[in-house]
Amino acid sequence: MEPNASNNMQPDHCLEITPMEVHKVVPPPHRSTIQKFKSRLKETFFPDDPLLQFKRQPLGKKWILGAQYFFPILQWGPKYSLKLFKSDIVSGLTIASLAIPQGISYAKLASLPPIVGLYSSFVPPLVYAVLGSSRDLAVGPVSIASLILGSMLTQEVSPINNPLLFLQLAFSSTFFAGLFQASLGLLRLGFIIDFLSKATLIGFMAGAAIIVSLQQLKSLLGITHFTKKMGLVPVLSSVFHNFNEVIVVMANYTDGFLLPRVPSTDQTLPGAPLASVILSTILVFAFKAQNHGISVIGKLQEGLNPPSWNMLHFHGSNLGLVIKTGLVTGIISLTEGIAVGRTFAALKNYQVDGNKEMMAIGLMNVIGSATSCYVTTGAFSRSAVNHNAGAKTAVSNVVMSVTVMVTLLFLMPLFQYTPNVVLGAIIVTAVIGLIDLPAACQIWKIDKFDFVVMLCAFFGVVFISVQDGLAIAVAISIFKILLQVTRPKTTILGNIPGTDIFRNLHHYKDATRIPGFLILSIEAPINFANATYLKERILRWINEYETEEDIKKQSSIHFLILDLSAVSAIDTSGVSLFKDLKKAVETKGLVLVNPVGEVLEKLLRADDARDITGPDTLYLTVGEAVAALSSTMKGQSSSHV
Amino acid sequence: MEPNASNNMQPDHCLEITPMEVHKVVPPPHRSTIQKFKSRLKETFFPDDPLLQFKRQPLGKKWILGAQYFFPILQWGPKYSLKLFKSDIVSGLTIASLAIPQGISYAKLASLPPIVGLYSSFVPPLVYAVLGSSRDLAVGPVSIASLILGSMLTQEVSPINNPLLFLQLAFSSTFFAGLFQASLGLLRLGFIIDFLSKATLIGFMAGAAIIVSLQQLKSLLGITHFTKKMGLVPVLSSVFHNFNEVIVVMANYTDGFLLPRVPSTDQTLPGAPLASVILSTILVFAFKAQNHGISVIGKLQEGLNPPSWNMLHFHGSNLGLVIKTGLVTGIISLTEGIAVGRTFAALKNYQVDGNKEMMAIGLMNVIGSATSCYVTTGAFSRSAVNHNAGAKTAVSNVVMSVTVMVTLLFLMPLFQYTPNVVLGAIIVTAVIGLIDLPAACQIWKIDKFDFVVMLCAFFGVVFISVQDGLAIAVAISIFKILLQVTRPKTTILGNIPGTDIFRNLHHYKDATRIPGFLILSIEAPINFANATYLKERILRWINEYETEEDIKKQSSIHFLILDLSAVSAIDTSGVSLFKDLKKAVETKGLVLVNPVGEVLEKLLRADDARDITGPDTLYLTVGEAVAALSSTMKGQSSSHV
Repeated sequence: MEPNASNNMQPDHCLEITPMEVHKVVPPPHRSTIQKFKSRLKETFFPDDPLLQFKRQPLGKKWILGAQYFFPILQWGPKYSLKLFKSDIVSGLTIASLAIPQGISYAKLASLPPIVGLYSSFVPPLVYAVLGSSRDLAVGPVSIASLILGSMLTQEVSPINNPLLFLQLAFSSTFFAGLFQASLGLLRLGFIIDFLSKATLIGFMAGAAIIVSLQQLKSLLGITHFTKKMGLVPVLSSVFHNFNEVIVVMANYTDGFLLPRVPSTDQTLPGAPLASVILSTILVFAFKAQNHGISVIGKLQEGLNPPSWNMLHFHGSNLGLVIKTGLVTGIISLTEGIAVGRTFAALKNYQVDGNKEMMAIGLMNVIGSATSCYVTTGAFSRSAVNHNAGAKTAVSNVVMSVTVMVTLLFLMPLFQYTPNVVLGAIIVTAVIGLIDLPAACQIWKIDKFDFVVMLCAFFGVVFISVQDGLAIAVAISIFKILLQVTRPKTTILGNIPGTDIFRNLHHYKDATRIPGFLILSIEAPINFANATYLKERILRWINEYETEEDIKKQSSIHFLILDLSAVSAIDTSGVSLFKDLKKAVETKGLVLVNPVGEVLEKLLRADDARDITGPDTLYLTVGEAVAALSSTMKGQSSSHV
Repeated sequence: MEPNASNNMQPDHCLEITPMEVHKVVPPPHRSTIQKFKSRLKETFFPDDPLLQFKRQPLGKKWILGAQYFFPILQWGPKYSLKLFKSDIVSGLTIASLAIPQGISYAKLASLPPIVGLYSSFVPPLVYAVLGSSRDLAVGPVSIASLILGSMLTQEVSPINNPLLFLQLAFSSTFFAGLFQASLGLLRLGFIIDFLSKATLIGFMAGAAIIVSLQQLKSLLGITHFTKKMGLVPVLSSVFHNFNEVIVVMANYTDGFLLPRVPSTDQTLPGAPLASVILSTILVFAFKAQNHGISVIGKLQEGLNPPSWNMLHFHGSNLGLVIKTGLVTGIISLTEGIAVGRTFAALKNYQVDGNKEMMAIGLMNVIGSATSCYVTTGAFSRSAVNHNAGAKTAVSNVVMSVTVMVTLLFLMPLFQYTPNVVLGAIIVTAVIGLIDLPAACQIWKIDKFDFVVMLCAFFGVVFISVQDGLAIAVAISIFKILLQVTRPKTTILGNIPGTDIFRNLHHYKDATRIPGFLILSIEAPINFANATYLKERILRWINEYETEEDIKKQSSIHFLILDLSAVSAIDTSGVSLFKDLKKAVETKGLVLVNPVGEVLEKLLRADDARDITGPDTLYLTVGEAVAALSSTMKGQSSSHV
């Protein structure tokens, strides 16, 4: 400090706190490494504290609570009443009317035999009713997972040339999806699905909807030699390539006797898909339209799910493919299931345990893979219908399952004449509803970067592939987080006149600088990835401050005050930062304000000489630091220590 | 709120701030999306603000500054004096005495002909003298980069069976390393090297030192059929396998006429390696020991670096290998160079520009790859010697380079009789110095997790491979950052009696709860990866608070106050969190304290109904919020809005 500078120091701000009132920064109460490790582990893997309810309970009660934890049906089952059943039977029948046509359609979307879609609407809902904790989730095949399963498997194996192998791979993928989902729940790694942000999912679903709709041009336009690829370019070129054929079919339609009954009905009309199926099936049967170029489902086998555990592949050349497919479909269907469960739980104000749900959905898929079912989860559209129709418990899933069973046992021959074009239309209607333009607008309004992530997911899915689009969006999201960590914000604080409050100078325009002090707030944990940046950035703040014209006239910096309130953690590199800074600022005093427990502990452990964490360099608030140090400066005539 | 609860409300805490003094939370001054994007871009890629010095300068001056930016020699060159030269010539000769034996040794470490090590000590130091901004860096081959280059290339190509191809691949790898380094600097992506934390590097270097030392058992023990693998297991088994041979050599040594002169000399004695080389060479020459089983370097070609640009591989089957090797050696040598430069700059208190250094080191390697040099960087040990010997500018590098040139031109025949065992001893001495036990202890003391990262790097290098060990350590470090982001800390705040300060209840034991308030501080940016967790965690705080016995007696929670001071950023998922929380806490008031500019802006944009960001729900400090809301509670007899 230059000898003549301190004479100019007359902080004429009215600071509320006088130096007498300075409060000590104390280290947090001692905890051993084991204790810290345990509490960190608990916060990371058991943030919901599932053992809380077991506390202070007798042993017998603990056993009951434990059984109820793994089988939620034991919780609500005993209290089940006829009144609840009345609600559940209505909603169960309603979702069954959706589940049957959608099951057939989505199985086709996955390039699987239509009957597999019905099988998948029978067993998994029963499993979920026992294990699941959501009261509104309607379980069954969903469009996105069906689409991904089909598109990933058809890249390697043709469902037309090799249908048995394809079916085996689909069941094996379902097994691995279930295994993966259940493991995530069991290992309490549920946070992995949090990495699929809302923006990613909106872009992804819109892209997937467009790809699926284009794929359905095959059924809608009746093209026989259609591409199996999922990209925009091959599909459009396929449509163009088969143009003659398209013309013939279109002519057939317009010929008069069967106009395609595209269900432009609102999604809130749950009976529409079933009505379309019944009506079109009757029309085809009556006019024998299958002989006039209208493609129909064809003969379906009667009977319940045959066992399929002998079809699971655990070795051989396709093992990598089924594991990859299982991972991707597993994580996507889990995301949909959990998100849907949470949405309706929030509406009715009850809690859905994420990790428990993962185990339920996972087990449902493992059991499903052994009983001729492919990947299932909680479907958004059907759960909404279920909720609206007044579902009270998972019994509505049981009702749906029984309805599907009756269909499988007795009604299969009726579907023989259902035209494929109607199934295509059902798929298109379902997936077009996934394009959420208002949400996209809202994202644009709130956060431009999230909008970019959304666009990447969308265009990635449309132009590259479903899984790559998703991977790109997730990678960009994680890159953003890492960038935030690597380039944390530092803000310069000023005093709000008449108070002891210090806030960002560039935000609160009435805040003023205190001469002789540079007060910075660091707003991120300090670690190896940002320690170097922070050092450079802080030195630049000093440099900028000292070269600014109007500041120069007042005084140079005597104290650098770092507000560490927002520094929630620190590592060895972060600790070195303060040692380096202390060296770099030389004669200026380096003052730390409000380090949190963990940060203070580590600083104390590293700083044996107490030159960073001494009594004159630690303060509880910026106001107290400024008040105390101002009086020190006044007390000295020409120099300070 | 229950009607009978509020009668118990008597906050008997003396809050310094009365309701009259409440300060408004205002949105930050408006900035357009473009402005925000530009300032974000600048903070991310130009945190050092390289254009600052160009401001308000005439055009001519700008040109000079620009040239000085790219060629730092123009900055210090004109001021160069005889006095400085005197210092530089002493230090230059000192490091040359290290550079010659180390160059030969390190080239052997990389399985390259010894002469390449000398070539690499001639051209790169000259390039660095023109482009580099550090005054202390001594440039040349280094042990770690040599080790990695050798170990990665020998996995695919044998240097014994195919020496020419091996040499070509080494030069090509050097080219890509340089290209990669220069691009990082040019694209201002220097922060990538920050991901190699201090803990990672300490573990990595210790592991590498052990592997290198074991490899040198070949020279030290004179084994002819030695493994080329880098792992601990193959090396030890190789030693055991060649046990007979080892016995013979050991007998030879103990036979008396040439005891291995292992330089156990302190590293601070820079002349020791050269002395060892000269002494042992003279002894071998005098006793004709090469005829008695002592392996020597053999004939070396005289003359300066031959051109090698025609040896670079830009296509063919080995392209992937050389690019991968270039990337790994490039990033490792860059880390060493930048870290060394920064260390000595901090000691002498001048600045080293990271991005500029990357361009200098990168260009030096690109030029080196065309003039028969392999990967070079600033070496830690030689830079320390340089600094201690009184180096003032990069001229000491020029002096060293000239000394090496003289050696290449006239002194090569003298090295013909240098025994390999001495070179091995030089390498072992150099790398053993890389094992930094005190730093490892310090890390254990400060941060246990960093210590685990260090151990992973160490054991990964020792038991798996050099590049995998490094990759594992970096992956764990990044995983830790992501975990911190996914599981941010939330702390419960209490009032420090007699003040308006609120601090962590579990840290400051004298802090007390204010009845009716639950005050939480969120200590991380809120984003898609943690919004779900934060919601669950906050609801658990409420639940725990309400079930605690002693609290129950006092009152239920009327207000949930969230201190957002430490929430430096938010995205669309984060905005939804507050909407969800508002719904979940129902009748309790949700109050936000001190949202920073960006967070407040996004909340305002998303919250058209102003139910989260209304005037009664935003406060500047926790103290003001509590004071204002307490008076509201008192003013009401049985209910609040």
